[in-house]
Amino acid sequence: MSENTSIQAIEGLLTLAQEAFLTYKRSNLKQRASFMHQVADEIEALGPELIAAAQAETNLPEARLMGEKARTVFQWRSYADALIAGNVLDIRIDTATPTRTPPKPDLRKTCTGLGIVVVFGASNFPFAFSTAGGDTASAIAAGCPVIVKTHPGHPNTSALMAGAISTAVQKAGLPIGLFAEVRSDSFEGGQFLVSHPLVKAVGFTGSFAGGKALYDLAAKRPEPIPIFAEMGSVNPVFLLPKKLENAAAEMAKQYAASLTLGVGQFCTNPGILVVPNHPELQHFLHVLKQEIDNTAPARMLHQGISDAYHKNKAVLLAQSGVKVLAMAEGVSAGNHGSAVVASVKASQFLANEKLGHEVFGPFGLVVTYDNLEEAVALAQTLPGQLTATLLAEQQDLESHQTLIELLTEKCGRLLFNGFPTGVEICYAMQHGGPYPASTDSRFTSVGPDAIRRFARPLSYQNWPDESLPDELKNANPLEIWRTVNGELTKEPIDFRL
Amino acid sequence: MSENTSIQAIEGLLTLAQEAFLTYKRSNLKQRASFMHQVADEIEALGPELIAAAQAETNLPEARLMGEKARTVFQWRSYADALIAGNVLDIRIDTATPTRTPPKPDLRKTCTGLGIVVVFGASNFPFAFSTAGGDTASAIAAGCPVIVKTHPGHPNTSALMAGAISTAVQKAGLPIGLFAEVRSDSFEGGQFLVSHPLVKAVGFTGSFAGGKALYDLAAKRPEPIPIFAEMGSVNPVFLLPKKLENAAAEMAKQYAASLTLGVGQFCTNPGILVVPNHPELQHFLHVLKQEIDNTAPARMLHQGISDAYHKNKAVLLAQSGVKVLAMAEGVSAGNHGSAVVASVKASQFLANEKLGHEVFGPFGLVVTYDNLEEAVALAQTLPGQLTATLLAEQQDLESHQTLIELLTEKCGRLLFNGFPTGVEICYAMQHGGPYPASTDSRFTSVGPDAIRRFARPLSYQNWPDESLPDELKNANPLEIWRTVNGELTKEPIDFRL
Repeated sequence: MSENTSIQAIEGLLTLAQEAFLTYKRSNLKQRASFMHQVADEIEALGPELIAAAQAETNLPEARLMGEKARTVFQWRSYADALIAGNVLDIRIDTATPTRTPPKPDLRKTCTGLGIVVVFGASNFPFAFSTAGGDTASAIAAGCPVIVKTHPGHPNTSALMAGAISTAVQKAGLPIGLFAEVRSDSFEGGQFLVSHPLVKAVGFTGSFAGGKALYDLAAKRPEPIPIFAEMGSVNPVFLLPKKLENAAAEMAKQYAASLTLGVGQFCTNPGILVVPNHPELQHFLHVLKQEIDNTAPARMLHQGISDAYHKNKAVLLAQSGVKVLAMAEGVSAGNHGSAVVASVKASQFLANEKLGHEVFGPFGLVVTYDNLEEAVALAQTLPGQLTATLLAEQQDLESHQTLIELLTEKCGRLLFNGFPTGVEICYAMQHGGPYPASTDSRFTSVGPDAIRRFARPLSYQNWPDESLPDELKNANPLEIWRTVNGELTKEPIDFRL
Repeated sequence: MSENTSIQAIEGLLTLAQEAFLTYKRSNLKQRASFMHQVADEIEALGPELIAAAQAETNLPEARLMGEKARTVFQWRSYADALIAGNVLDIRIDTATPTRTPPKPDLRKTCTGLGIVVVFGASNFPFAFSTAGGDTASAIAAGCPVIVKTHPGHPNTSALMAGAISTAVQKAGLPIGLFAEVRSDSFEGGQFLVSHPLVKAVGFTGSFAGGKALYDLAAKRPEPIPIFAEMGSVNPVFLLPKKLENAAAEMAKQYAASLTLGVGQFCTNPGILVVPNHPELQHFLHVLKQEIDNTAPARMLHQGISDAYHKNKAVLLAQSGVKVLAMAEGVSAGNHGSAVVASVKASQFLANEKLGHEVFGPFGLVVTYDNLEEAVALAQTLPGQLTATLLAEQQDLESHQTLIELLTEKCGRLLFNGFPTGVEICYAMQHGGPYPASTDSRFTSVGPDAIRRFARPLSYQNWPDESLPDELKNANPLEIWRTVNGELTKEPIDFRL
């Protein structure tokens, strides 16, 4: 099962995928959506063996995995529905004006898949961001075949998910090359895929080192290709003075809960909390310490993740001025991840770039500042983030305009009085952010807009109606929203008028 | 006037631009659109001195320049109107469901400018693709300040256009750093700009060599940035058998007209025409020869362009199997560009990659094929193109499905019975294509969608209504189209319902 796929076999899969592409791209948006609903059904139909496999391979609890399975099914269904709605892959029609000098042609723009997409799944979401996860669903929705480089952390889970997709492919009568998984426990397999001329785009969720290596490979090809790599961040939380004054204990409890949720193994884990020196600070820290001390350590996804957590945490704790505030149950055995919160002064944080590095796991750094200038300098020094959070009263917002304005420059999602863990799958979600949170801040990897990463516009000029793709035909047979002569409408185009 | 801007001065302009960014990004879409209309007015108000400067610097005729000026003004106005319509920078709102477990947050996504954009204009469109051209208008629409690296071919024209933008900036009370031009006749100035940490995106129109060099620079930065480089193509035209049979003379005349329009100096110039060996072929070639022979040579944009044209043309003509079919008025003096059409068999074209290279200017290569397999192989061998064209009867379309399907893979715009010169500014236009036609086929550099190159989504979660950007407020004060809970609507959000 976990044997590496040979380079020869990968070549074969790529050839099949390219053949599948040329067939699949001829399907209309409704047919594509219907296939995606079929995939959703097949995943939904996977029984307890899926949950059991994932539990064994990831240490994630059953309830979480059940929730993640439902989320994965929902991704396929909602992205499918977005195709039919017509508001993600925009359809633009500008009709002719033959009487103009020179005559204005008829132009109709749809979207077409880029070609074969290679997906590198994450270990922390074995369903939702892996084999049958958001990148795969986005690429299929865009009209692309997908080759997944299976995450070595959960090969059996991947095989079950890959089986569900392949069953749907067969039931839909689509070419089997539309989806395949490739196994490789070294960098070479992925490198071969990303460098292959038939591959036209890459989706990645994981570490900065991994994402950057793939970005460089993709950019150096004779034909560079787009890559969307989501590489995590420290997701800073700014607790502002009035809120601290009014709700120190509540904020401490909520922060501890978000920090330790899922053993801190989320891309949006709030790794840094920034707070003013204020009479209520001690109260906040006291409650936070209690909460963390009372957190039971839990097993992390796998030994590699846990080893990295302990190592990176030790590096941070060894930095000048960093003091441990709370440590859950001391040193833990095996691949357990014990929650730790430390504190440091803003002046020391500003002087040491290492303190801004992500520690993947339940590690929080409380940064205390003496004045607003320090807080602003701190925001300025932060690299790009997936999220930034304000815990604030309305009057805090008014007195921290510059800080807030700066934070809009630094993140893809800005939260007010909430915590960034929990990434909703919806149109308005932005999961991605300025580099190095992701390699291209213009796209998201969550929500129907994620489809746009893998599609490109294609315009037809003066093309006969009967030869146009369905979404561009005068009659609007798919009944979708289209921009016709600048106006959004679902109406057909009637030249008799 | 044409002195190079010093590196120190460029640093100063970048600092001003960044300051301007932080102010300008707070303007709402209506304010931005109103500023863009002001720019359009200022350009429109430029009198005969603009046309005179451009004529002196580019050799383009007055009528063409008057048309291009109107086109440039239209770009600013139509991109401004697209902002107000709300169908380019998508607004997505998903309202909260507090009763769900876990509670569903309120999420609202708008777009924000990437930051300072550096624009490298083209020489062949001194108005529409240069200082105040489409890239500048797109970036300003997206909420970004712009620094243009002035094209050394038309510095005086650029200065007038830059003056018009700066006047509009002043009249609108916006910070002067919002727009600046930089002069540099070497690669260093551009290199410094593209490598600067404050620069967040690049727009380029020009040669493959220039675009690729900037792409590599942008990708190698510590913080890689997006670049959209439109690098031209040979824009293949396929004349299919039935059309050749029915309209050989007409097609020859139209092809010659498109090939020689503006001395062949368009990115979409149809440099290659593919046609079957057919009894009517000689008729087609005969008329084409007559048309080309009768074309008066005209002066090209500048000496560099004309030198490159004669050099690249000579390289193509020296290739094995290439025969000159027609040459307008023999060798021409100075920077004139004389039209030349040569022919070659498909088998020889397929064996020599050089024959697919663009010759910027009025040079056409007629490739003749013996059977459909050769035509398909030819389409397969083509690199990415801005456009591909079918000259065909309906029955040709039916009998050439594979060829047509292949061409959709190779281009951004597919034409039926027309010619690719003439790039309409409208929503449905795609100007860009698979690499190497452009560096990112997911975007266009013409039409309101060009704005998307320079904007990124930003989501607000659970943010108080009064602190949201106007386009996200419940009341929809800008009265724009928004996707609310998956449905496109202009209605306000009323929680009392």
